[in-house]
Amino acid sequence: MHTRVLVTGFEPFGGETVNPALEAVKRLEGRTLETSEGRIQLCTKAIPTVFGRSVEVLEKAIEEARPDVVICVGQAGGRHHITPERVAINVDDARIPDNEGQQPVDTPIVAGGPAAYWTALPVKRIVQSLQAAGIPASVSNTAGTYVCNHIFYGLMHLLSTKYQTIRGGFVHIPFLPEQVVDKEASSMSLEKIVQALEIAITTTALHTTDLVIAAGTEC
Amino acid sequence: MHTRVLVTGFEPFGGETVNPALEAVKRLEGRTLETSEGRIQLCTKAIPTVFGRSVEVLEKAIEEARPDVVICVGQAGGRHHITPERVAINVDDARIPDNEGQQPVDTPIVAGGPAAYWTALPVKRIVQSLQAAGIPASVSNTAGTYVCNHIFYGLMHLLSTKYQTIRGGFVHIPFLPEQVVDKEASSMSLEKIVQALEIAITTTALHTTDLVIAAGTEC
Amino acid sequence: MHTRVLVTGFEPFGGETVNPALEAVKRLEGRTLETSEGRIQLCTKAIPTVFGRSVEVLEKAIEEARPDVVICVGQAGGRHHITPERVAINVDDARIPDNEGQQPVDTPIVAGGPAAYWTALPVKRIVQSLQAAGIPASVSNTAGTYVCNHIFYGLMHLLSTKYQTIRGGFVHIPFLPEQVVDKEASSMSLEKIVQALEIAITTTALHTTDLVIAAGTEC
Amino acid sequence: MHTRVLVTGFEPFGGETVNPALEAVKRLEGRTLETSEGRIQLCTKAIPTVFGRSVEVLEKAIEEARPDVVICVGQAGGRHHITPERVAINVDDARIPDNEGQQPVDTPIVAGGPAAYWTALPVKRIVQSLQAAGIPASVSNTAGTYVCNHIFYGLMHLLSTKYQTIRGGFVHIPFLPEQVVDKEASSMSLEKIVQALEIAITTTALHTTDLVIAAGTEC
Repeated sequence: MHTRVLVTGFEPFGGETVNPALEAVKRLEGRTLETSEGRIQLCTKAIPTVFGRSVEVLEKAIEEARPDVVICVGQAGGRHHITPERVAINVDDARIPDNEGQQPVDTPIVAGGPAAYWTALPVKRIVQSLQAAGIPASVSNTAGTYVCNHIFYGLMHLLSTKYQTIRGGFVHIPFLPEQVVDKEASSMSLEKIVQALEIAITTTALHTTDLVIAAGTEC
Repeated sequence: MHTRVLVTGFEPFGGETVNPALEAVKRLEGRTLETSEGRIQLCTKAIPTVFGRSVEVLEKAIEEARPDVVICVGQAGGRHHITPERVAINVDDARIPDNEGQQPVDTPIVAGGPAAYWTALPVKRIVQSLQAAGIPASVSNTAGTYVCNHIFYGLMHLLSTKYQTIRGGFVHIPFLPEQVVDKEASSMSLEKIVQALEIAITTTALHTTDLVIAAGTEC
Repeated sequence: MHTRVLVTGFEPFGGETVNPALEAVKRLEGRTLETSEGRIQLCTKAIPTVFGRSVEVLEKAIEEARPDVVICVGQAGGRHHITPERVAINVDDARIPDNEGQQPVDTPIVAGGPAAYWTALPVKRIVQSLQAAGIPASVSNTAGTYVCNHIFYGLMHLLSTKYQTIRGGFVHIPFLPEQVVDKEASSMSLEKIVQALEIAITTTALHTTDLVIAAGTEC
Repeated sequence: MHTRVLVTGFEPFGGETVNPALEAVKRLEGRTLETSEGRIQLCTKAIPTVFGRSVEVLEKAIEEARPDVVICVGQAGGRHHITPERVAINVDDARIPDNEGQQPVDTPIVAGGPAAYWTALPVKRIVQSLQAAGIPASVSNTAGTYVCNHIFYGLMHLLSTKYQTIRGGFVHIPFLPEQVVDKEASSMSLEKIVQALEIAITTTALHTTDLVIAAGTEC
């Protein structure tokens, strides 16, 4: 097995100066993970926290990297756990503007698209692997209705309609400690988050037996 | 400046198999911290989670180590922050039994003792230093009424009545991630907790100018 | 306008001896709400907290009552708010057994059904009306994967396939105070919950202009 | 038994337009509670949320009402429970300014006063009575370091030094629902809060056998 994985992280939004997803994803850039069944080659992409454009940037990254697996990562401020998302829903409903000032309300992401897409990640196995490694984790049933759910739905729509050999999904991560030094909110250290993403990636690769190995371009 | 600091941590209780306080304190055993104004020599002691006996073990450790500073550390499961405690109150009121089955209710810790003792740690400065290092922290106004408050009050009573040259206090720390892998509760990595205790110790040593340097026995 | 509304509530589950949904729904039985645009006639039904059978009981109640609107109500223990649900997903995934011992894991509710159904309640308007009345409320994006989501999905599937003139959806409510007298959990008084359901019902009736008025049997 | 009880509530602060304590206390003004052992006559006083002046207003009210019992009531936003306070500590440490712009930091309330005063209310019995009535309740070990703790300490100091026949203490109450209609925070209905205060008052009167009955002025 030789698996290529594209991991994406959002740029900071909502007044934050860092995004733990981007910080974690940067640590994964260019790395290779060794597993019992082969190597996993990682490449990464920073995604603008912008409705619409985020999915364009994602598709371009998929075209360039030709990955077997795509895992998009975003911040779920306030959650205690690493939460692989189960389902993406076809609606944008923004409580705050995105980084370009857009604030869609109750708008379909894909006109005529299905109400929801299921993740194609083995989310239960990921949670088991994370807990076994001492990392708080649970499956989430909502990715919200902001840009995180937007890119998750956009990703699954792309995989469903154009890139049917690629597996993908979305993982939410908590705040970093430095984001909440004086706030009553949960957080997780960057080291744990990076370790959690490595485990999520490895677990996905090992349990996605029908992955089609992409030939070609380095990612 | 050469400062000797005794750091104590409780043994696991309440059905937990680890106590983050003890785990963190073990990492500090025998270490030396270098500061701009001199060295800090650390020694540590595991304390039984038992009313009464915990203070006896603490006093014995003080007698042996002859420290300048004593910092007792305990777990405050559910808190997001490192919380130096401001005040110890003269009451035991246990919701669950201690590790020897004792469960005192509304009992004075020291008959005839004052209702409360203030910490002698620079708790505001410790919080500032922790936040500056990216670690969530705040001053707490209650150490509860279980063994943590018990040893805190017992410590301050000892320092007030027998060891008046020693400074001391209590710091509560969150759960470790591995304690809450499937619970909806906040946690902090062991690395962060150890770093936080180092900062608390260093800040105390640097802002306790009237510490009397103990001569003699190695700690 | 004369609108007939069927409101359902679940029987207690998970070790609880009451279910706030059932308690609230009982208070609505047989009542008539007067609005600026006509009368709303309420009928109610207790639903077993059981996968499968809950939807059978619901369908029988729909057959009997021939309502214009169906609102299913369930307890979301721990939530602060009245939360009308936005979307039902096609999966049963039970953390605890239901009242007949069934505990399905990652099982479709309707084999071959769509991944999700949107509510047909005006959830944003309901939230606005509730907040205007001083009642904490927000739209929820997940009804979970237990019997609440099960009946919600089952309801929307029935309305989509067999009862296309009926509008419906699901509303989650908090614990009652008496359920959490010694627990650290949020609650809402029964009076507020009943008032909230009245508002949700009235708001739905007033903003569902294309309701087809059912003739016939008393509800 | 004929008992006279003075109940106080704070004016709104911190940007809130209502204070649940004041709203609840208004409902008690002039009322008489009948118990198995006699009548309880209630009088009330609105207290400015101001360091220093709050205690002056309180003392004037005590002078006028000549009560047997004084219960001060304040809002503890975010708490789920009615929380009778166990202990008042001798420090003002304000995170936000009071209603006259004062923001003391680490300042003694009474110079030379004891570090803490215990409540003179039967707080455990009050909690039991509340829970038996279906109202979430627990004893709190900290009234904070803002104006609530300030008046609590000030009250206990007055009772200790000048009014030794009067019993008193402090009870914290949650937000009202209308304060948190769009916030993720716990609340309790005004009806429940008023009922809780009645229970706290009655329980105190019935378990304070050595109350000296004040003769004289109507309260």
